[in-house]
Amino acid sequence: MVNETQQSCSASSSSRSDGGSSSGSESSKDNSRCSTPVLDADRHERLREKMRRRQDAGDRWFSLEFFPPRTANAAVNLISRFDRMGAGGPLFIDVTWHPAGDPGSDKETSSMIIANTAVNYCGLETILHMTCCNQTKDDITGHLQKAKRLGLKNIMALRGDPAGEEWEEEVDGFNHAVDLVKHIRNEFDDYFDICVAGYPTGHPEAESYEADLRYLKEKVFAGADFIITQLFFRPETFLKFMKDCQAIGITCPIIPGIFPIQGYHSLRQLVKLSKLEVPQEIKDVIEPIKDNDAAIRNYGVELAVSMCRELLDSGMVHGLHFYTLNREVATTEVLKRLGIWKEDPRRPLPWAVSAHPKRRVEDVRPIFWASRPKSYIYRTQEWDDFPNGRWGNSSSPAFGELKDYYLFYLKSKSPREELLKMWGEELTGEESVFEVFTCYITGEPNRNGYKVTCMPWNDDPLATETNLLKDQLEKVNRRGILTINSQPNINGKPSTDPIVGWGPSGGYVFQKAYLEFFTSSEIVTALLKVLKKYELRVNYHIVNVKGQNITNAPDLQPNAVTWGIFPGREIIQPTVVDPVSFLSWKDEAFALWIEQWAKLYEEESPSRMIIQYIHDNYYLVNLVDNDFPLENCLWQVVEDTFELLN
Amino acid sequence: MVNETQQSCSASSSSRSDGGSSSGSESSKDNSRCSTPVLDADRHERLREKMRRRQDAGDRWFSLEFFPPRTANAAVNLISRFDRMGAGGPLFIDVTWHPAGDPGSDKETSSMIIANTAVNYCGLETILHMTCCNQTKDDITGHLQKAKRLGLKNIMALRGDPAGEEWEEEVDGFNHAVDLVKHIRNEFDDYFDICVAGYPTGHPEAESYEADLRYLKEKVFAGADFIITQLFFRPETFLKFMKDCQAIGITCPIIPGIFPIQGYHSLRQLVKLSKLEVPQEIKDVIEPIKDNDAAIRNYGVELAVSMCRELLDSGMVHGLHFYTLNREVATTEVLKRLGIWKEDPRRPLPWAVSAHPKRRVEDVRPIFWASRPKSYIYRTQEWDDFPNGRWGNSSSPAFGELKDYYLFYLKSKSPREELLKMWGEELTGEESVFEVFTCYITGEPNRNGYKVTCMPWNDDPLATETNLLKDQLEKVNRRGILTINSQPNINGKPSTDPIVGWGPSGGYVFQKAYLEFFTSSEIVTALLKVLKKYELRVNYHIVNVKGQNITNAPDLQPNAVTWGIFPGREIIQPTVVDPVSFLSWKDEAFALWIEQWAKLYEEESPSRMIIQYIHDNYYLVNLVDNDFPLENCLWQVVEDTFELLN
Repeated sequence: MVNETQQSCSASSSSRSDGGSSSGSESSKDNSRCSTPVLDADRHERLREKMRRRQDAGDRWFSLEFFPPRTANAAVNLISRFDRMGAGGPLFIDVTWHPAGDPGSDKETSSMIIANTAVNYCGLETILHMTCCNQTKDDITGHLQKAKRLGLKNIMALRGDPAGEEWEEEVDGFNHAVDLVKHIRNEFDDYFDICVAGYPTGHPEAESYEADLRYLKEKVFAGADFIITQLFFRPETFLKFMKDCQAIGITCPIIPGIFPIQGYHSLRQLVKLSKLEVPQEIKDVIEPIKDNDAAIRNYGVELAVSMCRELLDSGMVHGLHFYTLNREVATTEVLKRLGIWKEDPRRPLPWAVSAHPKRRVEDVRPIFWASRPKSYIYRTQEWDDFPNGRWGNSSSPAFGELKDYYLFYLKSKSPREELLKMWGEELTGEESVFEVFTCYITGEPNRNGYKVTCMPWNDDPLATETNLLKDQLEKVNRRGILTINSQPNINGKPSTDPIVGWGPSGGYVFQKAYLEFFTSSEIVTALLKVLKKYELRVNYHIVNVKGQNITNAPDLQPNAVTWGIFPGREIIQPTVVDPVSFLSWKDEAFALWIEQWAKLYEEESPSRMIIQYIHDNYYLVNLVDNDFPLENCLWQVVEDTFELLN
Repeated sequence: MVNETQQSCSASSSSRSDGGSSSGSESSKDNSRCSTPVLDADRHERLREKMRRRQDAGDRWFSLEFFPPRTANAAVNLISRFDRMGAGGPLFIDVTWHPAGDPGSDKETSSMIIANTAVNYCGLETILHMTCCNQTKDDITGHLQKAKRLGLKNIMALRGDPAGEEWEEEVDGFNHAVDLVKHIRNEFDDYFDICVAGYPTGHPEAESYEADLRYLKEKVFAGADFIITQLFFRPETFLKFMKDCQAIGITCPIIPGIFPIQGYHSLRQLVKLSKLEVPQEIKDVIEPIKDNDAAIRNYGVELAVSMCRELLDSGMVHGLHFYTLNREVATTEVLKRLGIWKEDPRRPLPWAVSAHPKRRVEDVRPIFWASRPKSYIYRTQEWDDFPNGRWGNSSSPAFGELKDYYLFYLKSKSPREELLKMWGEELTGEESVFEVFTCYITGEPNRNGYKVTCMPWNDDPLATETNLLKDQLEKVNRRGILTINSQPNINGKPSTDPIVGWGPSGGYVFQKAYLEFFTSSEIVTALLKVLKKYELRVNYHIVNVKGQNITNAPDLQPNAVTWGIFPGREIIQPTVVDPVSFLSWKDEAFALWIEQWAKLYEEESPSRMIIQYIHDNYYLVNLVDNDFPLENCLWQVVEDTFELLN
């Protein structure tokens, strides 16, 4: 009988009997009939669930620790490091708490703001460290509330270093990490996932190794979800520690902290702080090469790789936590050699998701911000709910205005001097602007020999997907169709396609061809005549800085331009051309001419006036070819326009 | 300059400045970011707007008048007439008000319930007539409230015939239609579209033609939106009337009432009631042939066609209103000859929409009710909101239970005797049931020479689309895979495709292959083994009457199986396989074995016991092939299952 092979679907069987028309009208309000499909389980799980799932599946994973930077410039660099190292697929990152650096403030270098940026703008699962000694209950609660408000979901609860020699335990104060764990659970219930620190050789201040183990157990039983250990130099140190933990009843995940030695001084510094002793066999290797940074780093990588291999091979370890010291090379090297750096070209959605819990359901965005996702997240940060499934006929999308072009997480990675080299120290006319666009597309150096690797509308080199359109783009940019966004049409490629694929495997992805550019009013006049021929096939929006808007979009409805069909799921349509939000984007797109480009030059200078002229007189145009199964007609539209002009 | 050719998009330009992050969070709640796309303007417009749009576009249209039936059986027939005549594309139908027939009651023959059925179950724009004389204000308000509750949006406001000779005007009472118009506007503001009657030769009780025109103007100025006229016999009568109306300032649409003469007696009856005089030239033709119904009807059709042509050719008339007398042939004939019967094979959505205003946004339904849309509407009538864009992960869809299998609008068109002829007076085993299913698929007569034109799960012959699968379906039904629903896979056919197309032109429609059937537990056991091979490709749900449920659907998410991509719009996915609502459908699908089939036979009879056995022991199975671009694999799945059994 089949009954025996059944996996009974109890959730549905029980809800089945909910029927009855009298209760129907009441409960229908509660139905989340417009709810999100779970396209990507990762976005819906808590960190401890992710960890458990990875462990159950036998997956190996890693995490990365960073400290907050000292300067605003260093913050800009750290954020782009987050983006680069995030590509390797860490399960989470963590940001340390520096009591001396005003860690809970709104400064761009504070622990709180760096963690906020990692979660919201880089889409990384993030643990914020927090120390409790020498702090009032109110301060701590305030920090935790702020963290929650910013979308942070995980706290590493630490005691911190007591200030001064005179420190004494306060009655009812926060004397130990366990007090902080209890406080978080008391005040915030189960909201946060809590991590605590473990000391494989015992805490330096502990009475004994055994006493420290008992104290660790106390922290776990007070509500901690997992443990990250202090660094250690020998794998057997960790494995013994882990067995000892298990022996006294600690069953939560214990993640070894890995410190790839990266230099002589940083090692000495760390050893001093952590009061650890470097084993003689390591000292013996290092001392003779202490002035050769490269040699030490190579040795550190070797050592870390062999230790990590031993840990993973023991079968007791599934995840590795790396003390990066905010550096990329050594850790990345170790991860790549271990084979756990997973640069997965497949994306859950075509755009970079944010990890804020309230954005969990978000699965559709206007295409305009495709190259400026952080700006989009910034401008929608005040939204209470996010579009899910469908963008809809949003008559007032209420985007926040973008005034703060210099917010560190929105800022160009390149300094002014570099931008000037790329975009021209001195412009001689609109044609020199055309040249900059063309060089960005082709990747060829400009007339002064510099490659143009970013533009005001895109801080990164051309996307692989856009490369598919390179020849066509080059041709039109040369003639003053200054493209800032585009995608080819796609008629059902596998969702695993390395260039255009996204979403779970087994699906098919589709796109309508899209082209967005600035151009002169002369070209727009000709374009509009040409578009009459394509009236039924091409949707267009043409707007200038003053908001004069020409469109053939029916009823101002959004046009889905990217969608995917997956097994057992509803259709996902992650990008749309939305006529209403285009007008918010237009403000930003035009302002970038001035904020990012014109302001590189002296006021009243000819270069600045050229950019100002373009800003004042050009139109921003977007075109969609609705006939995605046919050959993209947008190049023909542009071709026809140039022909009409000749 | 392009500025001059611009159609400025003022709605968006003004909303553009709504930005600002402080107001953002407040207004984002109001954003209908999940709202419906306007796929079909018709569903969102009021009747007067539709009329205006058709007139502006130079379209010609028609409408149909019916009266409520006397018996429940006649009601069943009238509903299927609504479905058939609805296929010709009337702009609206109207249902007369019979004071003697308890018109506002819940009887299946009341004006109110017939109009309700037309709107909700047949999806027709409907005007309910209402008379006011001899009624209290409270009665009238009660009727109007009920009409509104049922989703009726249009009222034809009439005085009605005073009861008895003695009738006198009441002070402050409802003495004239204008009183009803005013009352509706006072009590219901602009909710209803109001129609009033016009008399091309003057109301028989009016002082004079001119006085009647002035009275008509009063009705219009009191709030009527348009006028339908009493019947007339000569086009010039109407055209003069229309000019006279315009001359005194009546500017609303005036729709001529057309009465195709269908028989001698019905003409005499109508003339007597309306106190009209039949012109001599018509009498001269009719009197000699008064006993020849066919001849009179032919003449009536000729006469109506030539009158309608003259009216339309005048350029003053855009719509024609037909007094059908609840008959189909003559009116349909006239409409076809005029070329305004528009049997458009294209549908706005793949399923029949309801015209209730609260269902306006509905654009996705589970596939299970594809052949029983009226039952689906009935079981969801208490819902306050309808799925729009996405079905979602509805953990409690709260379908009303279907107990009333004999509600007149859900009932089979065929009487018991016919059903017995089709489905077998006497069943000899499960194989005789297989035969019935097979005959329904093939269209061949059964062993007693009767064609099987309906089944308990489908009251109509096989859909054209299902015909595409006929050979395969026949093969599997013969062997006990008793199919009740299926669709082929489609990989991007034009939305105008006559068989599988739907939605506006210029789009592309897609489908995943679907197959739903009852089958024995023996076959299910084999099927489950086979499905292991197709685990990643085929989603399945297998359930028996007790609710034992076997599925591989991820997280009980719905699977979109029909979708369309249209120019300038978001994706429309009108049908899904929803795991949760499948369990509500299962109750109905199993119950139909008993309610519609088993109960045809005596209790304890072998035939009844056979059906009861199937009901108790078979499984209901649905299969989706997710790889829509490839050849449908579901036939192979079934083939493999039979092979395994051999």
